[in-house]
Amino acid sequence: MTAPEIACWFDFASNYSYLSVLRLARQKDVIVRWKPFLLGPIFAAQGWNNSPFVLQKDKGDYVWQDMPRECVKYGLPWRQPSEFPRRSLLAARVALLGEHQPWMAEFCARVMLANFEHDEDIGNADVIAAILTSIGLDAPALLAAAQSDDNKARLRARSEEAAALHLFGAPTFFVGAEMYWGNDRLSDALSRATRG
Amino acid sequence: MTAPEIACWFDFASNYSYLSVLRLARQKDVIVRWKPFLLGPIFAAQGWNNSPFVLQKDKGDYVWQDMPRECVKYGLPWRQPSEFPRRSLLAARVALLGEHQPWMAEFCARVMLANFEHDEDIGNADVIAAILTSIGLDAPALLAAAQSDDNKARLRARSEEAAALHLFGAPTFFVGAEMYWGNDRLSDALSRATRG
Repeated sequence: MTAPEIACWFDFASNYSYLSVLRLARQKDVIVRWKPFLLGPIFAAQGWNNSPFVLQKDKGDYVWQDMPRECVKYGLPWRQPSEFPRRSLLAARVALLGEHQPWMAEFCARVMLANFEHDEDIGNADVIAAILTSIGLDAPALLAAAQSDDNKARLRARSEEAAALHLFGAPTFFVGAEMYWGNDRLSDALSRATRG
Repeated sequence: MTAPEIACWFDFASNYSYLSVLRLARQKDVIVRWKPFLLGPIFAAQGWNNSPFVLQKDKGDYVWQDMPRECVKYGLPWRQPSEFPRRSLLAARVALLGEHQPWMAEFCARVMLANFEHDEDIGNADVIAAILTSIGLDAPALLAAAQSDDNKARLRARSEEAAALHLFGAPTFFVGAEMYWGNDRLSDALSRATRG
C-alpha cells in the first residue's frame, strides 16, 4: 500500500494559501507534493492586473474580516499585511529548489509567517536570506541558484503547468486527478487522499 | 434571552445558495431572516454581464466538479442544471411576499430543488405556480401580487440594500453586523449566532 499523497499548489502572496501551507506543514500522515507557483500569470490570462481582492473592493474588504476568524479557527497567528499582494517571485524560485528537500515545509511555513504574521516584505532578498539562514541553510548559494537561468525557466514551466491544469486560484489541491480549490476544501482533499 | 438569528441573503439562481437554503430550511434552532435578492445588479456593478462561473470558464468547470461532492457532504440531491444561471426574478418576487410567512422556508427549498434537483426552469411562471399549489397556496393570487408595481419596487429596494451592505456574492449571512460569505461559512455563522 502506498502512502497517501496530496499536491498543494500555492502562492506565497496568497492569504488563503497561508492557511493551507501552515496546516499541511504540521501534519505527518500524508505526503505533500509542494507546488509553488505564481498567480500573476493566471490572473493576467483573465485580463486582471492584480489580485481580485484588490480589484473587487467589497470582496477584498470582506477577506480582511474573514482572515482573523479563519486564523482563530485553525489556531494560526495573523496580522494583516501592510502591503498586499506581496511580490512572491523570489520566494517561489527558492521554493522550487526545495521541493524535494527535507527543509521545504519549514521554509514555506516561515515565508508565510513572515508575510502574514510578521508583516515582512518577502519580496526582499534579505528577508528570504534570513529565513534560509534561520533553518541552517546556505543562503547566498541558494539565492544564487534561485536566480539562475535554469531555475527561472523552471518557474515559467511551472506556470505553464498550472495553466494546463486549469488552475484559477490558490491554494488548489490535487488528489490524483481530482481538483479541490481553496483552503475550505483542504479537509475534503485530505479525507479523499487517506481514503485512498 | 432572545432566540439566535441569522440573515440569509440568497439568489435562487445560485448553486451555492442552494446548499445553504436547504441546510437552513431544515434546522430549527435559529430564526432565519430570509433575504432573497438578485445577484445580477451586483455583478453588473463589477462590469460583469453574467455569473463569474460562466465568465471564468476554468472556475465554472470546477464548480460543476465541486457541487456533486458538496451535495454528498450535506446529504442533498443534485443534478447539474441544463441552463445556468436560470432567471430568478419571478421566484425572488414571490419570495419577497413570503418573507414573513410560515410557508417561506418550504417555498424556497422547493424552488431550489426544482432548479438543482429536477432541472426545471424556475423562470417559467407555470413552474412557480405548481410549487405554490403544491404547498397549498393560491398560486394565481400570489403571482399577481408578485408582479404588482409595489412588489417590483420592493425588489429594487432589496437590490439597493444589498449594494449598501457591500454584498458581492451569494449566499451571504449576517449575524448582527458580522458578514459571512459563502456556504462554506454557514457553520461558522450559525456557531456565532448561537454563541450569542
